[in-house]
Amino acid sequence: MISDGTLEELSRIVGKEHIIYGEKSISEYASDGTKLIYPPDAVIIPANKEEISAILALATDRNFPVIPRGAGTGMTGGALPVKGGLVVAMNRFNRILEIDEDNMICRVEPGVITGHLQQTVDTLGLFYPPDPASSDTCTIGGNVAECAGGLRAVKYGVTRDYVLGLTAVLPNGDIITPGVYTMKGVAGYDLVRLITGSEGTLAIITEIILRLIPKPDAKRTMIAFFKDPPSAVTTVSDLIRNKTVPSILEFMDRWCIGCVRDELDIDIPHNTNAMVLIEVDGDSSVMDKMVNRIKAICISRGSIRFDAAKGDREAERLWEVRKKVSPSLFKLRPHKVSEDIVVPRSRMAELVAFLSRLGNTYGLPIPAFGHAGDGKIHVNIMFDRENPEEESRIPLIVEELFKEVIRLKGTITGEHGIGITKAPYLSMEIQKPEMDLLYRIKKAFDPTGILNPGKIFTDA
Amino acid sequence: MISDGTLEELSRIVGKEHIIYGEKSISEYASDGTKLIYPPDAVIIPANKEEISAILALATDRNFPVIPRGAGTGMTGGALPVKGGLVVAMNRFNRILEIDEDNMICRVEPGVITGHLQQTVDTLGLFYPPDPASSDTCTIGGNVAECAGGLRAVKYGVTRDYVLGLTAVLPNGDIITPGVYTMKGVAGYDLVRLITGSEGTLAIITEIILRLIPKPDAKRTMIAFFKDPPSAVTTVSDLIRNKTVPSILEFMDRWCIGCVRDELDIDIPHNTNAMVLIEVDGDSSVMDKMVNRIKAICISRGSIRFDAAKGDREAERLWEVRKKVSPSLFKLRPHKVSEDIVVPRSRMAELVAFLSRLGNTYGLPIPAFGHAGDGKIHVNIMFDRENPEEESRIPLIVEELFKEVIRLKGTITGEHGIGITKAPYLSMEIQKPEMDLLYRIKKAFDPTGILNPGKIFTDA
Repeated sequence: MISDGTLEELSRIVGKEHIIYGEKSISEYASDGTKLIYPPDAVIIPANKEEISAILALATDRNFPVIPRGAGTGMTGGALPVKGGLVVAMNRFNRILEIDEDNMICRVEPGVITGHLQQTVDTLGLFYPPDPASSDTCTIGGNVAECAGGLRAVKYGVTRDYVLGLTAVLPNGDIITPGVYTMKGVAGYDLVRLITGSEGTLAIITEIILRLIPKPDAKRTMIAFFKDPPSAVTTVSDLIRNKTVPSILEFMDRWCIGCVRDELDIDIPHNTNAMVLIEVDGDSSVMDKMVNRIKAICISRGSIRFDAAKGDREAERLWEVRKKVSPSLFKLRPHKVSEDIVVPRSRMAELVAFLSRLGNTYGLPIPAFGHAGDGKIHVNIMFDRENPEEESRIPLIVEELFKEVIRLKGTITGEHGIGITKAPYLSMEIQKPEMDLLYRIKKAFDPTGILNPGKIFTDA
Repeated sequence: MISDGTLEELSRIVGKEHIIYGEKSISEYASDGTKLIYPPDAVIIPANKEEISAILALATDRNFPVIPRGAGTGMTGGALPVKGGLVVAMNRFNRILEIDEDNMICRVEPGVITGHLQQTVDTLGLFYPPDPASSDTCTIGGNVAECAGGLRAVKYGVTRDYVLGLTAVLPNGDIITPGVYTMKGVAGYDLVRLITGSEGTLAIITEIILRLIPKPDAKRTMIAFFKDPPSAVTTVSDLIRNKTVPSILEFMDRWCIGCVRDELDIDIPHNTNAMVLIEVDGDSSVMDKMVNRIKAICISRGSIRFDAAKGDREAERLWEVRKKVSPSLFKLRPHKVSEDIVVPRSRMAELVAFLSRLGNTYGLPIPAFGHAGDGKIHVNIMFDRENPEEESRIPLIVEELFKEVIRLKGTITGEHGIGITKAPYLSMEIQKPEMDLLYRIKKAFDPTGILNPGKIFTDA
């Protein structure tokens, strides 16, 4: 609990109107993408890095937890105040500070909505590729904290590949500015990438320098239908081996197809058990060549039909397929646990076969879809929370899934982070000497452990 | 000094034939790309990570310095045993362990020569883009330790952008395996990028997992001649703004041109004071279009001549220009200090003008050439070591240069690292709270400070 005296001091830092406590604070800031609920003691909405510095210095002195929060769209509980304490809401850090067209660099505050940044740079002929599914609502600060991925990573990489520099406040109140405003820079240890993906446990980010790239001239969208999932995922792997690196390569299995089939304006062959949605981008003069090459590979690997969109409207229609998948899965069961596992592309066929066996063993549907181009598959374990017996199977399924993923040389998290939901499983992937080192690094930033406690590290 | 007893123990770890001490050790392992000389107490040449683990555990116990060494091509003294101790030469870690064509990933030992890896993957239609100038002799392990850059960073990024995972030994002997064998992965803090560029001060790398990309279909080489350097660097900036991202964009100033002019088989217009060598790569069907677009931009920005190579032989001839620059500069003075500074592309014209003034002020030639596409310029301060008065101007010039670079929002090192030669200047770029944090991170890895002491951090 934060004492009344400390709350008083906090409100002097930001002004009374920018601190919330009591009943009010609970609803809006107590949950995130996990739907779990942990009410904070208080919520503070600072305006600048100096205020955050004062807040953190006070928190270190009085020893209360501080939890930075973007839009609260995180999937593993990164923004949840699991040990109570003070949520630092970054709502007022919402400005695009600079778009430097000459150097293709922008400086933004962490509370900027990712989609808003994408649209703004797009109007200038520039492109910010990382594109998490929540881009309409999530913030750049959250993306950096989690090292968000998204659809286009197969060609364009993930958030870390675009962060050049940061301003961040350490738990002791120190303000640091690691990184550069240039394409290269190797002075000192790489604090930029260390803070990127640290899930708000090392520092609070107050400014981000991002690299932009030229917007591709043209893009084309295609869809390929397959009788069996192994052919579909093998095709994905073969496309890339054949030097065709699409900007997007989305796989959907038979469960997903079953759920969206009736809702769509496109004709899905009745014997379809897997689909791959493909987008290529680049110079307009190579688009036809790329589409033809992709079509030839898909057909030769057993695609039963291949459609290439003619024009934006048809492309939009194909995209509807992918957009409807996630929400439509609730037709199968009212609740889901979604895991963002990754395996090497060449092992995806094994993974998909394993998921089918796993679902059969535990009697639950486990639809899979996702960014097959980078081996990242969203595995959705569908269940009914009202049925405790069904819910009790979930941890067993998750553990078996992660075991298999690691056997296939994959990772338990491609883009959602560890947070609280994956913390119990982290030791399956990271051995003790490395966990001990991570903990020593945490201590180097945050000796008293005030910043986002209970995340990544289990208490044990 | 390492005691005789300890040397005995070390030789039991690796076998007598793999440890060198006394006179013999001095010559081969005492220097690097800086040409400075610091003899080690002994040199050990281990065969595997278990031996390195035993060596480091012993070093921590007996408290003697350990200095990992690749090919010794580093430009800032990273491999120099400035406090004596044991050089760990990675010569025997020279195998390409796996090239996984399906997943476009390779696993290599750190002692593999970069150029050898590039050629090997090239024969499979794959591409490892980072290309430091020393690629014929430098090792991948050294590249990762320094986060090497090179010519192609403007389009393809630097070493850090290709490292997916590592095996590394900590100073206490713990073996860790951070990172993934997949395109995505965010489990735990990003130790891969933290160790990348840490200049051998945090851990000894024993295995590296690298991402590869498909080899581009085609490439074309061009050269543009300019009357004045500002037009040349503005052209570089404009090319990229106009969505033409060449794979290579090399700038050379009038000093460089003067030095190579007589040695070349190409006709340089007499009034040329700057040149830009350009390479584009990609799909063969867009090459003509790109060359024409680049030509149009160069001409419109004042290029007095523009040549595009027809065929490989002509391209080779253009490349001769760039290759001859660095060695030919010794026509100006017998010695040089070379700084790998970076500024935002849009500030390069200011930098080039500043260099001209700086050379005039101090009465020394300061030729500049380099990877202008990413704002990285090799600034060469030419002098005669036999002339102590001339040599005494060097630190003053370096300090003024770095001040200006930082004023232009640049960095004092784009790819060479800090090592010992830039350590005295690091505080110009990194403020004290951040330096303190770097030091706490160093302590988290290496509490007794045995690993590569005297680098990055000054003793003060």
